[in-house]
Amino acid sequence: MSEPTQSDPTYEVRPVGWVRSSLTERHGAPRQADEGAPAARIDFRPELALAMADLRPGDRIVVLTWLHRGERDVLSVRPRSDPGRPMQGVFSTRSPDRPNPIGLHPVTVVAVHDRAVEVDALEAIDGTPVLDVKPELGPPSTR
Amino acid sequence: MSEPTQSDPTYEVRPVGWVRSSLTERHGAPRQADEGAPAARIDFRPELALAMADLRPGDRIVVLTWLHRGERDVLSVRPRSDPGRPMQGVFSTRSPDRPNPIGLHPVTVVAVHDRAVEVDALEAIDGTPVLDVKPELGPPSTR
Repeated sequence: MSEPTQSDPTYEVRPVGWVRSSLTERHGAPRQADEGAPAARIDFRPELALAMADLRPGDRIVVLTWLHRGERDVLSVRPRSDPGRPMQGVFSTRSPDRPNPIGLHPVTVVAVHDRAVEVDALEAIDGTPVLDVKPELGPPSTR
Repeated sequence: MSEPTQSDPTYEVRPVGWVRSSLTERHGAPRQADEGAPAARIDFRPELALAMADLRPGDRIVVLTWLHRGERDVLSVRPRSDPGRPMQGVFSTRSPDRPNPIGLHPVTVVAVHDRAVEVDALEAIDGTPVLDVKPELGPPSTR
């Protein structure tokens, strides 16, 4: 194995689209999609139409978001803001406060438009940048 | 819902660590972890020790990587480079070539050191930047 990298590279991410949702406040957002998140739409950049051209209703996908309200200097939190729980390192939690505030959202596609997809339940507020969309990893036969 | 955002923001990601692996060539890398990926280590930045302090052997986690060899202007690919398959939009594939080349790797922690964790099987080459680590989402009772 090589020695640890000494350089300090950074990388630039550019949203591929944005979440459109009735959720507008972080504190009103459910913590996970199965706790009552509403349906939502993802509007893609027009120039990325080809990248989303094969999404279909029924597809199980993972939406990667940039949790732009997250605090990036937070290294430990109380899970679910519960004062009865001990502090935990953020890599053991799904807190939006973390060094690179990337959210993972498993959802089902319910409708596909020219440059947008509708999904069943997404726990991200309106305007949240979307960084990527991937299929959920199925068994090898379906890859 | 609000109007589509007209501005063109970008965000900077800074690696929280790096993959240390016996895999050194992208073309030698298995396409998915269950196709023969080796065990690997993630070395974290020393100043992020608190963020990883609660990881434990046996934890199921998702490692988010920056696939730094990915080509970011690619919008469609032949899945698994199979010439018999039709071109597909990258958001319907797990290709490393995509606008924001972020990889998702579900793994199990097998050992924890001061500033590093060992994981069971990771399909990323040595030196791959790590952007985030999260617990796999379990049922509500365990959150």
